[in-house]
Amino acid sequence: MYTVYGDYRSGNCYKIKLMLNLLGLEYQWQAVDILKGDTQTAEFLEKNPNGKIPVLELEDGTCLWESNAILNFLADGSEFLPSEPRLRTQVLQWQFFEQYSHEPYIAVARFIQLYLGLPEDRRHEYEKLQTRGYKALDVMEHQLSRTPYLVGEQYSIADIALYAYTHVAHEGGFDLSRYPGIQAWLQRVASHPKHIGMLD
Amino acid sequence: MYTVYGDYRSGNCYKIKLMLNLLGLEYQWQAVDILKGDTQTAEFLEKNPNGKIPVLELEDGTCLWESNAILNFLADGSEFLPSEPRLRTQVLQWQFFEQYSHEPYIAVARFIQLYLGLPEDRRHEYEKLQTRGYKALDVMEHQLSRTPYLVGEQYSIADIALYAYTHVAHEGGFDLSRYPGIQAWLQRVASHPKHIGMLD
Repeated sequence: MYTVYGDYRSGNCYKIKLMLNLLGLEYQWQAVDILKGDTQTAEFLEKNPNGKIPVLELEDGTCLWESNAILNFLADGSEFLPSEPRLRTQVLQWQFFEQYSHEPYIAVARFIQLYLGLPEDRRHEYEKLQTRGYKALDVMEHQLSRTPYLVGEQYSIADIALYAYTHVAHEGGFDLSRYPGIQAWLQRVASHPKHIGMLD
Repeated sequence: MYTVYGDYRSGNCYKIKLMLNLLGLEYQWQAVDILKGDTQTAEFLEKNPNGKIPVLELEDGTCLWESNAILNFLADGSEFLPSEPRLRTQVLQWQFFEQYSHEPYIAVARFIQLYLGLPEDRRHEYEKLQTRGYKALDVMEHQLSRTPYLVGEQYSIADIALYAYTHVAHEGGFDLSRYPGIQAWLQRVASHPKHIGMLD
């Protein structure tokens, strides 16, 4: 059985929970509180020297880190990760887009607003994050106005990666009403019979 | 034949050039100047709606973007990408680490110093980038003091991904003399018979 070290409110951790549920895999969840410094203890740094969640621990004690790498590990061989080389590359393309051009803006704006209560000394940074976050949403809308999922016709781990923080983007101050493609896609993802919500 | 849209001084673009050379693949290089806005034209946004380099164009016109996704595409089936699932996951783990915890600090500090000449109004940001950049180098050193390459005994695209900006980290003000593991690894990578330098 897998052990996930994570925080239920973290989109990066939610990706792993959603994937495990979609695949019907059993796991136990080990709650980690980043604000209390749980990821910086010597014991945790043994699991991930980069001091971040999520971590997936396998039965033999091997620890895998980086949410999108874990998604690729879990989805390999399933319907959620195409084997055709170009499609597989496009899945990775969207996952790297998520970590570089989406998460650092949308997740961080949400962190400042939801976790920290939007303190005055972070407001300038928060507003800069809005601009860059909307740019990422524009890129997603460009694709999702053309195809039902990010990589064509099939629900893949590219969608899981980007659903995680997009479906809670309003908690970071983002207004999705101007994005019909993204809105329809959010509903499409959430309507999968094995879907599970972030706080379920 | 492949076409690469890129800038020779960009580490993200250099990853692709190094990979193509290591694999002995033919390509043509299309120079793109980000400071002149070349990546924001309608024609370029057709190739990559996110407006970033590098882009790899295949013979049929298909465009792939995100440097690390392109590395996975090119290396698939070669000695530079292990097929064993856990090792393959570890390669991805280091590539996502590169894009989230390394590049945004080390490459951006280098951009501010090398491209912009370290203007006074970016100095505060530059100093914050130093702290986070050294943290990423610490994580690399932790691994490279244990194994010759980031994923064990074998030179992989995880090394290509992290070599790109680490070997020019001094151009962003980073002192590598305190990292013997990283220094030996840089030499190991550069000693491959098919190695090519960033500006060669």
